[in-house]
Amino acid sequence: MARIVQKFGGTSVRDIERIKSVARRVKREVDAGHEVAVVVSAMAGTTNQLVDWVGETSRLHDAREYDVVVASGEQVTAGLLALALQDLGVNARSWLGWQIPIKTDGVHGKARIDSIKTAEIERRFKEGQVAVVAGFQGFGPDNRITTLGRGGSDTSAVALAAALGAERCDIFTDVDGVYTTDPRIVAKARKLDKITYEEMLEMASQGAKVLQTRSVELAMNHGVRVQVLSSFSDAPGTLVVDEDEIVEKQVVSGIAYSRDEAKITLLRVADRPGVAATIFGPLADNAINVDMIVQNVSEDGRTTDLTFTLAKSDLARAVKVLEEHRAELGFAALKPDPNVVKISVIGVGMRSHAGVAKKMFRTLADKGINIQVISTSEIKVSVLIAEEYTELALRALHTAYDLDAA
Amino acid sequence: MARIVQKFGGTSVRDIERIKSVARRVKREVDAGHEVAVVVSAMAGTTNQLVDWVGETSRLHDAREYDVVVASGEQVTAGLLALALQDLGVNARSWLGWQIPIKTDGVHGKARIDSIKTAEIERRFKEGQVAVVAGFQGFGPDNRITTLGRGGSDTSAVALAAALGAERCDIFTDVDGVYTTDPRIVAKARKLDKITYEEMLEMASQGAKVLQTRSVELAMNHGVRVQVLSSFSDAPGTLVVDEDEIVEKQVVSGIAYSRDEAKITLLRVADRPGVAATIFGPLADNAINVDMIVQNVSEDGRTTDLTFTLAKSDLARAVKVLEEHRAELGFAALKPDPNVVKISVIGVGMRSHAGVAKKMFRTLADKGINIQVISTSEIKVSVLIAEEYTELALRALHTAYDLDAA
Repeated sequence: MARIVQKFGGTSVRDIERIKSVARRVKREVDAGHEVAVVVSAMAGTTNQLVDWVGETSRLHDAREYDVVVASGEQVTAGLLALALQDLGVNARSWLGWQIPIKTDGVHGKARIDSIKTAEIERRFKEGQVAVVAGFQGFGPDNRITTLGRGGSDTSAVALAAALGAERCDIFTDVDGVYTTDPRIVAKARKLDKITYEEMLEMASQGAKVLQTRSVELAMNHGVRVQVLSSFSDAPGTLVVDEDEIVEKQVVSGIAYSRDEAKITLLRVADRPGVAATIFGPLADNAINVDMIVQNVSEDGRTTDLTFTLAKSDLARAVKVLEEHRAELGFAALKPDPNVVKISVIGVGMRSHAGVAKKMFRTLADKGINIQVISTSEIKVSVLIAEEYTELALRALHTAYDLDAA
Repeated sequence: MARIVQKFGGTSVRDIERIKSVARRVKREVDAGHEVAVVVSAMAGTTNQLVDWVGETSRLHDAREYDVVVASGEQVTAGLLALALQDLGVNARSWLGWQIPIKTDGVHGKARIDSIKTAEIERRFKEGQVAVVAGFQGFGPDNRITTLGRGGSDTSAVALAAALGAERCDIFTDVDGVYTTDPRIVAKARKLDKITYEEMLEMASQGAKVLQTRSVELAMNHGVRVQVLSSFSDAPGTLVVDEDEIVEKQVVSGIAYSRDEAKITLLRVADRPGVAATIFGPLADNAINVDMIVQNVSEDGRTTDLTFTLAKSDLARAVKVLEEHRAELGFAALKPDPNVVKISVIGVGMRSHAGVAKKMFRTLADKGINIQVISTSEIKVSVLIAEEYTELALRALHTAYDLDAA
């Protein structure tokens, strides 16, 4: 007997037929004698509809009311799945965030989970009851509903698995696991059997949309064994585990890309100490996050060029902020560029293998692709290139690192 | 300055444009200096969709999960209306049943309100805040969401008005008041300026669908002044008030009808004491309510015919129950008839005026309409007739009682 958390995303519960199918899958684990908690997302499309309604109703919306509206989607699915399980003869009940409660901080719209009270759910496990938990939501210090941000049901599931001490947290989605890269672009992409938390974290934050980044952090911090798998097949998925569990480490496990990037270059900025703070201060004040930064070597000893990347959705606002501070920043010209993509090669094996970055630069150079910005971490090398080279770069790198399926 | 409760039904909040229009109407009361609580239904069509999903998911559903699913509709509207009010610069927040809380009994699916805690809402009135309350729902002794039955938002509104000691409870709907009869059938139907609680109660329970019956009972018991009016116009509606407030009482105020009736006749039932209990016992055990009952005078002194009415939706089940008990009940034949309608003339003036029933029977006889069953109360005469005569009977009675518009 094991204790398992299963999480089903929006496409897995998109209509009543799918919800019944999910119920049958849950029943298999119950019949095998396991204690099961299920976390559900809203039916596919529902959250977008609700978010649209909020946007149409009010331009500058109160995040507390946004949460009231948007959390209703998961409430519906939780009730329906409990009913579908009961219809199969499985003892089940739904739980909303405020009923458990899943306590969060007070940051409505993207709250963080503080604690989950599991005593009652565990008591009911003993009676054979399945807990069907509405994902994405919690209960704030103001006694109101909070939501955890888009994709937050992953985080609900991992947090619940940690609180319950579950042996496994299965994340059912519409893909059957984590791939070496996006299989829609690279036909030879392979599904990974296992991936380390660190790699998954980099994959998620570098653009792979399989898991919410925060859920991976949480899984890593609490040692929750996460499995990503498809609700539409019975094939095993990808296990996200501790590095120790992976015997044969790949130098490079995967290649992620993110089109959600933009670049700004400031020409002829004064080359003196404190200039970076002067520039990035106003951006930070406006809640604009900067990712990669490159400062060129000064040619004349007095001025330099500065390039940095940020989210594409922040580009227009960042340009406006910088132009407003032009006098004090003292740049000669500002060149925004939304047509860029960030490509990252990721692998824990990099720690012990040199030459990963060199191979990346060589491969891209051979294809005539110019690298605009570079950034590295212990297990990742990222480059910014022109967006039009995305597919070419991904395929070339996938082959270069021997990731292609046989 | 007054304290007002406004309730908006599903068609009044059916889309974002309508919700914004409701917000403007609420703002008018706020600008006039009033303290306002607003009760909202789900957007038109939402509740039916949710009920359908529950039905498709599980045949014999757990009413607790039904409540979780179905209560989400009002949650969405409450959040959206609070946002729409904020967008107009009105201080507003949404309240769900469990947040106030509106405490109910534990009868999921058709719970009754036990108490409403209004201290916090009243404190916020002082700060100029509008309370937007999700209708139709409460919080049961099991700490779960309960719902109040279809049309339950009327009851939420009246109960809230009573708890707040509100001066008025305005029920906004898609008709502009209570009519002497259904204006879709009788073109000369008139809108009533005032109607007594007792009359409204009979109108509601005899098939007029303007207000939920329970909300009228509650208004009567707590002396809540209810106004029924249209959210689509600015015309005054119908005030439901105490009898004392109506100076010139009509003998007949309105004529209601209900097509939701069916008739069963049992032929040659043994004519002995206790036979009614024998027959209606098994029906009551199966939660089938019987309305009108007629027992014919026995011709042979040993057997009699028994006719009664019940909800059309219960007919098939009732026939099954009676056939199962045929041996002990000992009837010769059972004749079910779903093609009947109940027509009721209603008016508090009947108490002091004779001849109301006589005029009804005469009017119907003149049109060649056969009366199958009769039942009367202090302020009401109801008859069961063949359904095909519905329109003819309504128009003839409307004229006979001088209700036609000039």
